[in-house]
Amino acid sequence: MRILTIPVVAFLLLIGQGCNTKNEKLENMETDKAELNAIFPKGEKGSGDLFTGNAYPTPLVGSDSVYNTLVGNVYFEPGARSNWHSHPAGQILIITDGIGYHQIEGQPIETIKKGDVVKCPPNVRHWHGASPDVGLQQLYIIPNTEQGIVEWEEAVTDEEYKENTN
Amino acid sequence: MRILTIPVVAFLLLIGQGCNTKNEKLENMETDKAELNAIFPKGEKGSGDLFTGNAYPTPLVGSDSVYNTLVGNVYFEPGARSNWHSHPAGQILIITDGIGYHQIEGQPIETIKKGDVVKCPPNVRHWHGASPDVGLQQLYIIPNTEQGIVEWEEAVTDEEYKENTN
Repeated sequence: MRILTIPVVAFLLLIGQGCNTKNEKLENMETDKAELNAIFPKGEKGSGDLFTGNAYPTPLVGSDSVYNTLVGNVYFEPGARSNWHSHPAGQILIITDGIGYHQIEGQPIETIKKGDVVKCPPNVRHWHGASPDVGLQQLYIIPNTEQGIVEWEEAVTDEEYKENTN
Repeated sequence: MRILTIPVVAFLLLIGQGCNTKNEKLENMETDKAELNAIFPKGEKGSGDLFTGNAYPTPLVGSDSVYNTLVGNVYFEPGARSNWHSHPAGQILIITDGIGYHQIEGQPIETIKKGDVVKCPPNVRHWHGASPDVGLQQLYIIPNTEQGIVEWEEAVTDEEYKENTN
């Protein structure tokens, strides 16, 4: 019985180890799923003059006289948001992952999430960003760039953000 | 020894089964990862008059006189592609997952993949779609829609597709 016990225990330990390796891999994959599915390289952190928190803007299409359209991505970490700003020809947002907020000045906040599409009309002040606990990945499309691109304004304060997201 | 063998074998079988359950879950997750990360509901299959194979177009932003921009998603299953077509004001593609092809008539085929951006100039015939083995998920942006949206033409034949993707 003793003679058997040692190899059996060793074998059980080996099998146990095999199971643990699989379990660890499984747990890592489940943890990874909590991250947003980044489509574009994260790049450099956006300026504190335009964003609050950790926001990573990635230009994708620069404006030219053929397409008259500017396209880019912003990856907002939880709690990050843009300053208040407006666009002379409006803006379209396509949410590709996560959960966040969009607010047109004077209107209730909208919760936005993966798969949503948001329009902000020309010359209207708005801000957009992540929820406090989950990040937001969004494409922005600025059309008719011959009319202008963006007017950046003041930061969304913690009070405004908390007031809107409680 | 025989007395031990039965519970030991039973125990090993139980542990083996535990491992198999984890392995099956792991394999399923790995299989899931081979699927594209769909951002939008897949919706209905696109018309055989415009696409070859299983392509799922999802309109996201309809054209209007404020934004003059049309936006949508197409989820191409492996081997699926658009017909040849052109846009009076050009088209911008943003690849959000997978691997596929874009070809402007008379030019070499481009391989396109997650994170890529493609421009097709106005009034130029082109087609786009998935690779034979991996699907493609792409947003399309049609700017300056006051100039028109799309001219659909003939299908990309199997010969054209194979010739280009070999």
